[in-house]
Amino acid sequence: MSWTPNAHAGLMEQAMTRKILKMAATPGLISLAGGMPAPESFPVDEIKAAVDRVLTDHSATALQYGVSDGYQPLREWVSADLAAKGADYPPDQILITNGSQQAISLASGILLEDGAKLAIETPTYLAAISTFRPSGCTFVDMPCDEDGPIPAELRRVRDARFAYIIPTFQNPAGRMISAQRRQAISETAHELGLPLFEDNPYGELYYDGEPPAPLASFDPENTIYGGSFSKVLSPGMRIGYVALPKKIYGDFLNLKSAVDVHTANLIQLIVYEVVKDGFLTTHLDKVRARYKVHRDAMDAALKKYMPADAVWETPAGGMFFWVTLPEGTDTGALLDTAVKAGVAFVPGEAFYAVDPPKNSLRLSFVTVSPEQIDAGVKILAELLR
Amino acid sequence: MSWTPNAHAGLMEQAMTRKILKMAATPGLISLAGGMPAPESFPVDEIKAAVDRVLTDHSATALQYGVSDGYQPLREWVSADLAAKGADYPPDQILITNGSQQAISLASGILLEDGAKLAIETPTYLAAISTFRPSGCTFVDMPCDEDGPIPAELRRVRDARFAYIIPTFQNPAGRMISAQRRQAISETAHELGLPLFEDNPYGELYYDGEPPAPLASFDPENTIYGGSFSKVLSPGMRIGYVALPKKIYGDFLNLKSAVDVHTANLIQLIVYEVVKDGFLTTHLDKVRARYKVHRDAMDAALKKYMPADAVWETPAGGMFFWVTLPEGTDTGALLDTAVKAGVAFVPGEAFYAVDPPKNSLRLSFVTVSPEQIDAGVKILAELLR
Repeated sequence: MSWTPNAHAGLMEQAMTRKILKMAATPGLISLAGGMPAPESFPVDEIKAAVDRVLTDHSATALQYGVSDGYQPLREWVSADLAAKGADYPPDQILITNGSQQAISLASGILLEDGAKLAIETPTYLAAISTFRPSGCTFVDMPCDEDGPIPAELRRVRDARFAYIIPTFQNPAGRMISAQRRQAISETAHELGLPLFEDNPYGELYYDGEPPAPLASFDPENTIYGGSFSKVLSPGMRIGYVALPKKIYGDFLNLKSAVDVHTANLIQLIVYEVVKDGFLTTHLDKVRARYKVHRDAMDAALKKYMPADAVWETPAGGMFFWVTLPEGTDTGALLDTAVKAGVAFVPGEAFYAVDPPKNSLRLSFVTVSPEQIDAGVKILAELLR
Repeated sequence: MSWTPNAHAGLMEQAMTRKILKMAATPGLISLAGGMPAPESFPVDEIKAAVDRVLTDHSATALQYGVSDGYQPLREWVSADLAAKGADYPPDQILITNGSQQAISLASGILLEDGAKLAIETPTYLAAISTFRPSGCTFVDMPCDEDGPIPAELRRVRDARFAYIIPTFQNPAGRMISAQRRQAISETAHELGLPLFEDNPYGELYYDGEPPAPLASFDPENTIYGGSFSKVLSPGMRIGYVALPKKIYGDFLNLKSAVDVHTANLIQLIVYEVVKDGFLTTHLDKVRARYKVHRDAMDAALKKYMPADAVWETPAGGMFFWVTLPEGTDTGALLDTAVKAGVAFVPGEAFYAVDPPKNSLRLSFVTVSPEQIDAGVKILAELLR
């Protein structure tokens, strides 16, 4: 019968993330597309020092097989960090993953299947859509207003296996759900028996004050919490984690064990060595100060150059502006022209699982300099006119 | 509805690999269970030097997002290494994975599904069984003799999606398929339209002369080849790769992208830096010399202590002895007693997908010293009498 991909393989798409990563490598291109941290923000010296300590003192652990759960001191660090933010998951409910993307993938593998419903915000993170889709699940939209999913409307999606939510500096919309709304969502979901998945890769990247406590802080046994060191330390290390309700930890661990045994020990030990004495506190202050300047530069450039009918909210954190243009604009059709003109962005349609509108786009402000942000937005605005 | 694992989650087992990794951490235990390389074999100084060069010269690449395919120079190195062994896969058909376990997992995700047939050797690698099983596939045995799967019998499994074979120093049986048999398997499989998956983590660990060219050398477009740096460099780095027929590369890449975006760049660059100038040639000579002593020590200990009715073949490479005891022996029931007496092994039943016989066991000779091998086999033999 020769090679026969299964029924689900056909549901995979050449993920837009991959196109973005390839575009980002085009020489001279001003990329406002990818959510790639500025390389200048990588703490190279601290990582070097950490590697040296790890390979001097712990090489037999760093280079050997480990347990599927993850490196115990790192699990304890994550548990304590979440507790400090108000979310209570003991270390033995923390699973170390290959970036938070793997947390999404494990949730798909355990909780979804053909015909299962999955509730999502609209728009939402494009690579989550790509990862959930091959499960054969059916996407259902959570009705939202400008403050996020509307609690009273959650009953419409009560038969979903879970609701996938990015409460803090949402990708792509930049939206932050308020503390009050978080509590209402959590309480309503609990009453409805609707489990929640809080994806929080951007929570530490705040520029106008600290965000509210995680959604997971209200009801950890009804909430999966996915986090990552990608945006605060280095995405090339691929270290994320998922904090799990006790009831489903074992299933996630079994699947993690089956898919790749465990996340690279060497990297887990390096990350732990870098963060264990509080390095992130000072490091993140610097990262926030840097990105705030970028955020403000993009806000200023949008005000200066964009057509009057373009609409956006200034995000209080994260990496992205979400710009909506008049109906009839087709940002997907514009992308190739824009790349030829020297600027890349992500068409808004990529962030919808079904019936994508075509008149929005996502701009990242973290990868390139404020000067390039100004130049890139100017080129883009001219093309839009 | 609260947390509802899907129909496949129930097919997962608490993998024996995880039990082994946990057992191995018991203080004072002589573990003949895990296939964990001796920590003394890790080239710590070379890895340290490589990390320093990577973080000095390539930190922006090592710490940033990369493409899902893997680090291009490493893909090229793997392609050249396979070509030198006779297997022809261009670099753009090499996908870097988190250990070769992830190659197995990707094959399961793309090629298997409910009711699909999967042909396996009996016994076979236990963690492959654990990874394939949740797909809902049906395992079918390839009839084997002492030289491996019997070509003329392959027609019995011709409707399988693929045949999973470990031709070189098979785990657990230690068997090596001859060059002639490899060619016959490959040709028959081609005629039948039966795709092959060659898993080859142990091929470099030969103690009595180099093994024949890979199964994949005969018909790469009909063969997936999985390889790994775990046994030759360090398993804690979790770097493996899969060489793919052109026809299915895109599907595997899509799934890799969905499950964790890409394998950690930092580690890929470190591995490439370590291997690029031929380090493995001298390093593997040392590793082989070390393990040959261990292999011989275990062979001697088995001859010295085992009951006369125990049967085994001395493996020409790899990590394991496969010992068969008289029918009626239940090695699974013996394990707890053995661990209390200070020695661990893996009961043979773990290596069967269906109807496991209970009278065999697998002993690893790579983790502990020759003296401990002698002591461990002695304890075990006394318990068996």
